[in-house]
Amino acid sequence: MEEMKVLLSEEEALSLSQEVLVNQGFSAEYSRAISETVVAGQKDGCESHGLYRLLSCIDTLASDGVVPDAKPKLENVSGSIVKVNANGGFSQLAFSLGLPLLVEKAKDNGIALLAINNCVHFSALWVEVEQVAQNRLVAIACNPTQAYAAPHGGSAPLLGTNPFAFSWPRAGKHPFIFDFATSTVARGDVELHQRENKPIPDGWGVDAHGNTCNDPQIVLEEGALTTFGGHKGTALSMMIELIAGPLIGDLMSYESTQHDGGKGVLPFHGEIIVAIDPASAAGKDFEQHLARAENFFDQVETQGARLPSQRRYENREKSEKYGIEISEKLYNELLSLLN
Amino acid sequence: MEEMKVLLSEEEALSLSQEVLVNQGFSAEYSRAISETVVAGQKDGCESHGLYRLLSCIDTLASDGVVPDAKPKLENVSGSIVKVNANGGFSQLAFSLGLPLLVEKAKDNGIALLAINNCVHFSALWVEVEQVAQNRLVAIACNPTQAYAAPHGGSAPLLGTNPFAFSWPRAGKHPFIFDFATSTVARGDVELHQRENKPIPDGWGVDAHGNTCNDPQIVLEEGALTTFGGHKGTALSMMIELIAGPLIGDLMSYESTQHDGGKGVLPFHGEIIVAIDPASAAGKDFEQHLARAENFFDQVETQGARLPSQRRYENREKSEKYGIEISEKLYNELLSLLN
Repeated sequence: MEEMKVLLSEEEALSLSQEVLVNQGFSAEYSRAISETVVAGQKDGCESHGLYRLLSCIDTLASDGVVPDAKPKLENVSGSIVKVNANGGFSQLAFSLGLPLLVEKAKDNGIALLAINNCVHFSALWVEVEQVAQNRLVAIACNPTQAYAAPHGGSAPLLGTNPFAFSWPRAGKHPFIFDFATSTVARGDVELHQRENKPIPDGWGVDAHGNTCNDPQIVLEEGALTTFGGHKGTALSMMIELIAGPLIGDLMSYESTQHDGGKGVLPFHGEIIVAIDPASAAGKDFEQHLARAENFFDQVETQGARLPSQRRYENREKSEKYGIEISEKLYNELLSLLN
Repeated sequence: MEEMKVLLSEEEALSLSQEVLVNQGFSAEYSRAISETVVAGQKDGCESHGLYRLLSCIDTLASDGVVPDAKPKLENVSGSIVKVNANGGFSQLAFSLGLPLLVEKAKDNGIALLAINNCVHFSALWVEVEQVAQNRLVAIACNPTQAYAAPHGGSAPLLGTNPFAFSWPRAGKHPFIFDFATSTVARGDVELHQRENKPIPDGWGVDAHGNTCNDPQIVLEEGALTTFGGHKGTALSMMIELIAGPLIGDLMSYESTQHDGGKGVLPFHGEIIVAIDPASAAGKDFEQHLARAENFFDQVETQGARLPSQRRYENREKSEKYGIEISEKLYNELLSLLN
């Protein structure tokens, strides 16, 4: 049976989301910032980072896992480093507060880093790196999550699903963006197999002895997810633990799991965003060099490979034309939260 | 039959390498810089980046693929960016020239970027990021190479084997370092199978239609290598093409292949090294945060996984104790180059 869908305009989706959040106890400011993120996800067809996430935001608040009116605090650390202490709030307001100074520092000095500390995190990083690219800067962002994956050759959950995102500005086009988890699959994919009582493919997870395991329950309860691409993905995931953890004085995934203490709410940790200015790094002919990148993208596409964000941008166009699609079930659930 | 080995002290290996290079036409300065790199590789048991590389340096010179006495030129671009134009020489002298200012800028501003342009490249990046870590900084480095790998879903060589390296300083210990190619395997691994007339495993390469292919000759002549980890490795490799290519005004892998024009010498392109200062990014308690990273490393090792550079450091210790091992065949070949 096909799931029934509701179509909302962007304004309708934003209003609904904001009203739900305010009604559940979030400040107007957070409600707006969170809504912009989840509506952007819904609009691009990323349902896992769409309006559905409002439910976990509300659960997290109910478990005292987030400060609903936290005031993020900006610290101008050094010539090229800006930090924002989210003070236990969601990451979005902290990011919005830090972005202008990140952009300014990157344009002044060529490269700059924004560290967000002590935030509750759920948003997709592509939403943030896209905003950096809109300032004609290149961006890299990453963060730990919670301990779900074993390092290659190991057997116990230690590493997060640690997303790694990148954006590259393109003249007259949406930026080139990717945003991937460094685990082979999301934990949700394994949970879905468990609920449907289906085995998982080889390579998604290991048992408590580190052997590949097809039983989703064993992977979730006794073993661990794997990192993508063997030891190389593990290396990348470890780098993310370090540079978005101790390097900025914040928690690693396993520490975030300890901090959660079994509540199972949205993770609490930090995040980094590095921005680089092509006008400084490439010099005065930077427009010509950016144009060369367009030839490169053409060569990827003409051989039948897709650019990473292409599907998202196609969904965005569709949403702008016909409205944002949301399942009727979720829509009704959100309406019920207005009471 | 076991291959015969010769043991050399570090001083003997350096002298031999320097004499060979000077005798073949390199300036004393380049000879010393190249020798330090290849001896470091040999000492750590990385034979592919060891003394063996002297042969390709010499071949590259014979084909006019490198300027043997190029003067690298330093440019202090902005608060956090330094560029060194290698002017067609090998990367080592350019790196040595740029490193002090990279370190100074990273300590002053928290994060800094060194771009090396117009260099002939063969060294392993771990040699360079280790030197950044010795200055108590975190480092990330990468570079394009030549067009060997197809993007995921494609079939034609476009991406390089693009190495990605990271270093993290550890108090009283060798730094945590990884340095991996973003292709599934090195091109040399496929060539070795071709010479031995052996099929290659699934997933190493594709044919001209983009299908996985076990014939090394077809992969090398009509198809392409793959990137590691499917679409995620492709994304990472594309990022490297962009940030160590157009972002710093230098060539991408396929442009480097065009520049080579079929000579098949060591590749000509750029490289970037980003350095971040924990004292700035983590703040005044940075030593405590670095200590937390040690707990993390412990947890990787106690579950039976290895830290990426462990084997290299074990080889290094062995070399320091017993001497640096080099095959007798290569040793004799190098001696013959002294005439």
